[in-house]
Amino acid sequence: MAVRALVFDVFGTLVDWRSGVAEAFRACGVADNPEELADDWRARYPRILAEVNDGSRPWGNFDELHLVTLGDLLAERGIDLSAEERSRLVAAWHRLDPWSDVRAGLEAVRRRGVVATLSNGHVALLVDLARHGDLRFDCVLSAELVRAYKPAPEVYQTAACLLGLEPTELMMVAAHPWDLEGARRAGLRTAFVDRPLEYGRGSAGRADPAADESVADLLELAERLEGGR
Amino acid sequence: MAVRALVFDVFGTLVDWRSGVAEAFRACGVADNPEELADDWRARYPRILAEVNDGSRPWGNFDELHLVTLGDLLAERGIDLSAEERSRLVAAWHRLDPWSDVRAGLEAVRRRGVVATLSNGHVALLVDLARHGDLRFDCVLSAELVRAYKPAPEVYQTAACLLGLEPTELMMVAAHPWDLEGARRAGLRTAFVDRPLEYGRGSAGRADPAADESVADLLELAERLEGGR
Repeated sequence: MAVRALVFDVFGTLVDWRSGVAEAFRACGVADNPEELADDWRARYPRILAEVNDGSRPWGNFDELHLVTLGDLLAERGIDLSAEERSRLVAAWHRLDPWSDVRAGLEAVRRRGVVATLSNGHVALLVDLARHGDLRFDCVLSAELVRAYKPAPEVYQTAACLLGLEPTELMMVAAHPWDLEGARRAGLRTAFVDRPLEYGRGSAGRADPAADESVADLLELAERLEGGR
Repeated sequence: MAVRALVFDVFGTLVDWRSGVAEAFRACGVADNPEELADDWRARYPRILAEVNDGSRPWGNFDELHLVTLGDLLAERGIDLSAEERSRLVAAWHRLDPWSDVRAGLEAVRRRGVVATLSNGHVALLVDLARHGDLRFDCVLSAELVRAYKPAPEVYQTAACLLGLEPTELMMVAAHPWDLEGARRAGLRTAFVDRPLEYGRGSAGRADPAADESVADLLELAERLEGGR
């Protein structure tokens, strides 16, 4: 069965959250290794999403959860920022730049099939990111529509259902093996895209040997799809 | 408060369902006044959607409901079509041409704010129509996400919520006063766009004196927004 639509993870896969968030820390006067702060903030994300998925925390969107994890981070490090500065840091996640291949790569992939987001970020956040980066999607799909976070199977299954497709007609594209593993469990096909700079130069490499495709960027992904593989 | 996003009705407002559906009847060999058949098919839509909204019919998407209303129409008129021909007629609603101002008009409006669909059509149908007409939306919103049909207030309210806006920051654009009235009851602003050809030449004119804006096409709407009105 052919791939009819591709759904893309966004943070890390399409946009460079680390540089944008570090820059926002710098703009708040927190200039002492802001990249490390960005990494620490991001590292708090799997746990709080798991709390939502296991019911120990009520649903919250990324703006709400980012504010909670930022508060924890600042408290632990003894950094004092005003409510307004915290709001600006949370808002920085709405204006992250895409990796250099993404705009043209999405256009190339769109010629082969439907292109949608499938992010844990909420719809309004994804709309802002797409407008900021001039990224064209046929549809913005989000965990928010299900009120459960990836890798919960219903997120991937609902994406297939909303696109009117069988899960095997849908391919999840991500830089994160845990996301692709969740997609596979839900019956989707998977493409791993390498983003060696997501955590900065010299960070640990990743790979997903179980993925149907492994590519260096979205232009290579479009070529693979052209080849009918 | 400024308008931050515009949500567009699709059938009749952005795309010409009558010509496309009549053409599909013609392609099935039903050449005896296919425009009237298209009108009759479309006229069965408010009632079946109301049945879903009042709970007397389980949720069904437009493909499913179109198949039901087509069956009723053909039975009443004694027209015999195969299951495959019926499927092709239902599929015709996925490939309707936009009115001539729509593609450029949406681009112009997008420069002023977020542009999304807000249609009773399901997500997969809207994605197909947008791709067919090369229409660019920032987001595809649908009654399907709420499992209730316009003019139910939750459809409009959920659109505002998903876009992260207050209802008054959102403007509903439609050619149908009943849709705009539903949007107003939910707190949205409204723009009436005149589509005098929706039901063919010489059909009854429409107007919505209660709308915040009334325009002849989407390019005029973009101009009004530019003017900051």
